[in-house]
Amino acid sequence: MEGESSTWLAGGPGGADRLAHLIPVALRALDAGVAERGGPIPAGGPAAVAAALAATGNAGAAPAARGGHDVLRSGTPGAEAGSSATPRAPQPAALSSAAGLPLHGVGAERALEELGTLLASGAADPADPKCAAHLHCPPLAVAVAADVVASALNPSMDSWDQAPVASELERQFSTGIARLCYPDAVRPDAVVTSGGTESNLLGLLLARETAGSAIRPVCGANSHHSVARAAWLLGLPAPVVVPCADDRMVPSALAEALAPLGAQAVVVATAGTTNTGRIDPLTEIAGICRRTGARLHVDAAYGGLALCSATLRTRVAGLELADSVALDLHKFGWQPVAAGLFAAREATDLAALTVRAEYLNADDDTEAGLPDLLGRSLHTSRRPDAFRMAVTVRALGVQGIGALVERCCATASGVHGLVADHPALRSWGPPELSTVVFRPRAADELPGSAGDDLVARVRRTLLEEGTAVIGRGVLPTGPEGSPQLWLKLTLLHPHATEADYRPILDAVVTAAAALRTAVVRESPVAS
Amino acid sequence: MEGESSTWLAGGPGGADRLAHLIPVALRALDAGVAERGGPIPAGGPAAVAAALAATGNAGAAPAARGGHDVLRSGTPGAEAGSSATPRAPQPAALSSAAGLPLHGVGAERALEELGTLLASGAADPADPKCAAHLHCPPLAVAVAADVVASALNPSMDSWDQAPVASELERQFSTGIARLCYPDAVRPDAVVTSGGTESNLLGLLLARETAGSAIRPVCGANSHHSVARAAWLLGLPAPVVVPCADDRMVPSALAEALAPLGAQAVVVATAGTTNTGRIDPLTEIAGICRRTGARLHVDAAYGGLALCSATLRTRVAGLELADSVALDLHKFGWQPVAAGLFAAREATDLAALTVRAEYLNADDDTEAGLPDLLGRSLHTSRRPDAFRMAVTVRALGVQGIGALVERCCATASGVHGLVADHPALRSWGPPELSTVVFRPRAADELPGSAGDDLVARVRRTLLEEGTAVIGRGVLPTGPEGSPQLWLKLTLLHPHATEADYRPILDAVVTAAAALRTAVVRESPVAS
Repeated sequence: MEGESSTWLAGGPGGADRLAHLIPVALRALDAGVAERGGPIPAGGPAAVAAALAATGNAGAAPAARGGHDVLRSGTPGAEAGSSATPRAPQPAALSSAAGLPLHGVGAERALEELGTLLASGAADPADPKCAAHLHCPPLAVAVAADVVASALNPSMDSWDQAPVASELERQFSTGIARLCYPDAVRPDAVVTSGGTESNLLGLLLARETAGSAIRPVCGANSHHSVARAAWLLGLPAPVVVPCADDRMVPSALAEALAPLGAQAVVVATAGTTNTGRIDPLTEIAGICRRTGARLHVDAAYGGLALCSATLRTRVAGLELADSVALDLHKFGWQPVAAGLFAAREATDLAALTVRAEYLNADDDTEAGLPDLLGRSLHTSRRPDAFRMAVTVRALGVQGIGALVERCCATASGVHGLVADHPALRSWGPPELSTVVFRPRAADELPGSAGDDLVARVRRTLLEEGTAVIGRGVLPTGPEGSPQLWLKLTLLHPHATEADYRPILDAVVTAAAALRTAVVRESPVAS
Repeated sequence: MEGESSTWLAGGPGGADRLAHLIPVALRALDAGVAERGGPIPAGGPAAVAAALAATGNAGAAPAARGGHDVLRSGTPGAEAGSSATPRAPQPAALSSAAGLPLHGVGAERALEELGTLLASGAADPADPKCAAHLHCPPLAVAVAADVVASALNPSMDSWDQAPVASELERQFSTGIARLCYPDAVRPDAVVTSGGTESNLLGLLLARETAGSAIRPVCGANSHHSVARAAWLLGLPAPVVVPCADDRMVPSALAEALAPLGAQAVVVATAGTTNTGRIDPLTEIAGICRRTGARLHVDAAYGGLALCSATLRTRVAGLELADSVALDLHKFGWQPVAAGLFAAREATDLAALTVRAEYLNADDDTEAGLPDLLGRSLHTSRRPDAFRMAVTVRALGVQGIGALVERCCATASGVHGLVADHPALRSWGPPELSTVVFRPRAADELPGSAGDDLVARVRRTLLEEGTAVIGRGVLPTGPEGSPQLWLKLTLLHPHATEADYRPILDAVVTAAAALRTAVVRESPVAS
């Protein structure tokens, strides 16, 4: 291995040996950082993390390692963080100062060691069951290992001559995904995206290209913010919002919303909402869309992988009736971000993405048999994320993935049981997927907005202490359907058990009791 | 390490050990596949790769390994590929059959070994100097190693509680990039994107949000196809196309195009065109935009990193006058895809991306000090690509990156010299960055479209033989400015020398001579 290790290439002959030298450096940093953190997230909150990072300046010390926990919370994080963190020999210069990026390098090993440790010690690690706020999964090691091969070879999916086998593997994998969503369709197809946000954009885009720019998006009050954002991006009117009950779209309300629009509408239903994991009544919604001629896109970014489980797939029945579906394998699927897919019942619908660029898909090249890949994405250069998804599915099988989904859902049912049995907690309702929504009863006893204030402060307190990372969501459960703030646990850890989550519930109750007095004192309504 | 390796998590305590077990399996597969391929790309072309992959069915054999070269080209790839490729013990089932994805898994090790070898043996490997068609770089090992840490921890950049230190490191890195582009601006900022395509979209989007949807995009005939595609996506009118000379935008033509539009225009200039690497006269263009009130976005996806070199940065002078700039560190920058950046001279311009989602950036959380990250991207879940970019810049320094850019440009000058001196080749012109554009003189001697046909067939022949991966581009060099097809070498291999490219030039000449008779025979004009 010749030359400076910082200029070594990952590919070509000897590439694997060069990686076999540098990756262990990265793994040692990962290990050291995880040990240093010791919990789900660094303690101290954003100000402390930023201040410590700024204050350490030339230090590689983790900004908010568990060792510095109390110091970071003491109010003078900048001054003391450096002394409290475990010192490491080489001290990196700040990544960016007033003068910008560092002019001179420190070499590959040192950069990996210092910044790798920093990232790991300062991560919110979804592999810790106490990190359960978001649809943010702990990735499988097999997916991470597969990605090394993809990164080293760097196939770019915009032309065949940058990705000969990678493009063929992607085609096979996405066809398999399309068949998973549409087992009875004649010619379904799927493309790889950066996630549900892009897949929802594609859902609206295909509708726009089919029905014209007068089309109106229609979605539930429970839909992801990316639906409205996609409408904005595409220059479409803001979506018509259909009321929900129990965080599910109300079919009769949808029928009413569609009545004046006719076929000039694209409905976005949700299979697994962000707030509660609820699944819209897909079959009924599809029937309404069919009668009015509206297109139907289903955002199944969360719930779609229930298709892998024989016992759970009935929960998303009706998915196969949609014109298009968004799936995310970086939720259930346990891929590192990004691992989005967009499936269409009719492959021909994807023709809306067709684009010509002479250097990538000239007509004569296409005629001569070079596959035209450019029209399979809104991106040009594009990573072969399908590769690690395909390796994972090959390793585990659809059944193996389904078993992990089942485990998460079963654990969520168990945790919901703990909530329901807890005298100091109130459950929003039993989980349909793996989200447990609850509220400390202490919040219900406070007047006006003070209850929500308490809920928000409980969450932030546990976050800032480094105790747990819990999610939040607003649901219309207040007087006369007014919004109320809830806590949620989104369970994507496939090996965690009910018992792992009990301490979070206890911590919520303890924090609520401790914060209640302060909230009452500061609340304008209560005081 | 407990349990099935296919369900091991990459993060948490012990994650590094689990990766230390699986990554070597992936690296052995990478090494075996690279050795099996033995050249820049598998021989046989798309049909052979697809047929061999389909024919091997249950085999993990590389579809188009060098060993199967002749067989794959013999016309019966399906029947013989299996027997010609080196047999490996475990035979994987097809990823996807009529029945879809595999129901049962084969375990992590076997999936990594089989599909890893398949990907590597069937890759177009930019670490081979003979793979020089596109802006498709060979990634640095340090960037690939850094990405392992990012993948294992899986920070998602849409909220602080998924990425505490990762978001702060990204902020520091992108501020550094913004200062690299805009050294004298008061408050520049930059955000991470998936590449030039998304950055160009942001350039037009910010203009639309500033000036309204009546704004008209204006770009050179040399601009990337993503500019027109972004206009389409955003619901804007198709761009006004400004003529070019020598693949550079003609300033007087731009002034003429802007005259009727006034401030209702966003100009996209290019610093490093895809076809030739030419740089538009940025300072002059910026002056014209300032006078008319038009916004200016510069697509510097290719040329932007010339800013890292003291000797080359003068070539992109005027970049700092643009309102926004697209940069790609997966070109010069030697990152695996994706590593895009979008810099804005005024941080406040990025406010156009602001979006609220209660679960990610609730007002009260933002007021309480939780950074609002959602408005820093069009994505929601988002990978910390800034981390490997930051590690790379930390390892090499800006100066080290600049030195690699200089080497590629110097090699391109050398290769251009070889072309200019070659009696059977014609140069389009000296490179401004690292792209060498040329044509076999044999093509010039053919009538009508037969010359272009010869050029296209030379490229496809070398591709299908597995000899070399060469690019193509149409330039207006024919009679009265009519389009003509050229070949190009895009040199992004930082360790290759002039001598490495001589065999490609010789192969072009040999292929042109061999194909000439067939082209003449088949040409409608010539016959």
